Parts: sequence; C-alpha cells; structure tokens
Amino acid sequence: MFICFEGIDGCGKTTQIKLLEQYLSQLDVRYVLIREPGGTLAGEEIRSILLHKELKLSSETELMLFIAARAQMVREIIRPALDKGELVLADRFMDSSVAYQGAGRMLGMEIVERLNRFAVGETRPDITIYIDVPVLEAVSRMRKDRKNDKIEVESLEFFERVRNGYMKLIEKEKNRYSIVDGTEPVEAVQRKIRKIVAPFLPNDRLNRR
Amino acid sequence: MFICFEGIDGCGKTTQIKLLEQYLSQLDVRYVLIREPGGTLAGEEIRSILLHKELKLSSETELMLFIAARAQMVREIIRPALDKGELVLADRFMDSSVAYQGAGRMLGMEIVERLNRFAVGETRPDITIYIDVPVLEAVSRMRKDRKNDKIEVESLEFFERVRNGYMKLIEKEKNRYSIVDGTEPVEAVQRKIRKIVAPFLPNDRLNRR
Repeated sequence: MFICFEGIDGCGKTTQIKLLEQYLSQLDVRYVLIREPGGTLAGEEIRSILLHKELKLSSETELMLFIAARAQMVREIIRPALDKGELVLADRFMDSSVAYQGAGRMLGMEIVERLNRFAVGETRPDITIYIDVPVLEAVSRMRKDRKNDKIEVESLEFFERVRNGYMKLIEKEKNRYSIVDGTEPVEAVQRKIRKIVAPFLPNDRLNRR
Repeated sequence: MFICFEGIDGCGKTTQIKLLEQYLSQLDVRYVLIREPGGTLAGEEIRSILLHKELKLSSETELMLFIAARAQMVREIIRPALDKGELVLADRFMDSSVAYQGAGRMLGMEIVERLNRFAVGETRPDITIYIDVPVLEAVSRMRKDRKNDKIEVESLEFFERVRNGYMKLIEKEKNRYSIVDGTEPVEAVQRKIRKIVAPFLPNDRLNRR
C-alpha cells in the first residue's frame, strides 16, 4: 500500500503525518516514510543542489532534479518496501511536481506529468490524501511558523496557481484522491485521515486495537 | 552559430575540438566551448553526483541529471553566447542522451528525445559533426589511452547500441549532421572538420587569414 499526502506548503501535512505515524506505531504497523528529494544518498545530494541559492537554477533544471531524486527513490526505497508488503507513506510525490512546477511555475501540467510518469514507471500512490487549506491561510501559517525556505517565499499568485493545479488533478483522478479540510482543528483532521487510512491497514492490526 | 560534436567515447572528439580551438584562436574568432554536464555551477554539482559510484544511480536518475545540467547550461551559457553572436562549440549535447541513455541504456530514443526537447526549448545545434569510429577501434583506443571512467567500462554491446542510436539520429536529420571518418589520421580528420566549419565563421576572419 502506497499512501501519499499532498497539499500546498502550510497545509499541515507534516504535523498530520507525524500524528499518523504515532497511530501506526501503536498498531505495530511497519511503514516507510519518504520525503523527497532526500531519503536516498543521491537524493540528499540533489537536495543540497536544490537548496543552494547561488546556483540560480532555471525552473526546468529544478524540475529535472526533483524528478531525478524521485526516480532514484522509487527504485531504491519505494518498490523494495512495497515488494515486502510494507506500507509506504509519502510526504509529497509526483503530483507535487505537476502542481508546483507544472501549474505554479507554469511549465505545463501535462508535460510535467509525462516526465514524471517516465521516471516513476508503474509506481503510483494507491491513495492520495489532499489536505486543503486556502492559500491566504496557508501563507499566514507559514509566516508565523517557520523560517521561509526557497519555495515558501513565493508569491500568493504562485500558490493560487499551485492550488488550482491540485484541483485539476483531483478532478481528473477522483478515485485516488481523498480531500480533507485542513482548516479544522488538528485532532479533527487527524481523525479523518485515520478513517481514510484504516481500511488499508493489515486486518489483524486493527482488530488488536 | 551553435556547432556540436558527437560520437562514441574514444572517437577522438576531444583531440579534434582542441585542434579546432587552435584554428579559431588563430583566426581571432570568439567562441565558447561547452562540455556537459559541467560548465555551470549547478552542472559541476550534478557532475559530481554522476561520477559518485556509491550512489548506484538508476538509468532514469542518471538521464534526468544530465538533462538538468543541460537545461541550466542552455539558459546560463549557450543562449547568452548565441545572443551576443558568439560561436558555441559543444563537446556533446542532447543527441548524446538520445544515443547513450535512449539507445545504449535502452530507455527509448523517442522518450529521451522528448524529455530533452522540453529541457532545451528551441536551442539546438545548427551543425552536428559526428566523428565515426567502429566500436572495436573506439574501445581499444579507450583501453590504451586513459583511465576508464564510469561510462567507459561499459560493454561492447552497449557501445554498439549507442552507435546504432547515432546512426538513426543521423538518418532522421541528414541536414544537420556532417559525418567525418574518425579512423583517418588526426590531421586529415581536422582538415575535414575545418572545411565543414569554415563557411559558418565570420567572413572577415577568413579573409584575414
């Protein structure tokens, strides 16, 4: 089972994944958490290029680097874990490229999707949980909560384009996507996420609870 | 003017480019020489990932990294040089991806070409000089001449696929390609290359000679 979390920066993904990890640990469910572009040796090297502000990467370069890290992650971590029957949780996957680079940076959603499909092959999430938060709220959370990194200093318009990109993806793949309202209290959001995930956990784990 | 050199490893490209540079310097022709994946700050970082044997890069990862470096090179070096009217000499460009990763590593020539076209946009060589050497000769030259690097320890079959890939590209784009027989003596090969290049140099330079 491959479960992916998506959403614009500031939507609360990281907090929610942490809480879900606690739940999985309580249930003794083995899982692998991935967060791109790091997680493999090559991915960590690529991450340091992406975060290096003096390199002035073009949008195309940035996109290709994310996809390179993803191609490696799929082969080194995700496929072996899925083959062993382990649960894979992803904090972002290829839809982030489509929404951020395709829609946000206006490289084109379709071509960005095609590039990603080539790189990941048949490895796609079984469920994608989209944590939905309006752009204004997400940006104000980001400003409050943390030091802005490279992507988070983008403009409101950028994040509007990203969110619209996600909306198009969701429209296209309604069966794969579950949408959770990220403006509700943290605990309420987590309850909903656990309800979505529960049916896909090994049965014996759930009964034991 | 954008002139590119292609060929399998061991074909003599580097030697021939050095000799062409001497000629251009004698004529006072300004030129920029590029050799991927290095040449930009980002490209140098990417190069060090590509050469790092412990990372065990998948073919897809390797391809995406080459394309990332190329996308940056196009925007940071090639386009500004062409805009200033300078001559650009490239020791390999996107056709190397198509032949090496597309045909050699069997990722598919068509998809590799499409990925590259996205990354480079409209920036393509005006002429591509293919230095043709049979695989057996190229490999025996490589074994004699230098320490084998990552790509050069590939099998004969690999280089056969690469050469066949080039042959298909040449077939498809006869007008862009000039083929030079790389088994002739170095000076003879260089004379032919200078003959191909000469019509594209600024007129006043040639008259001055």
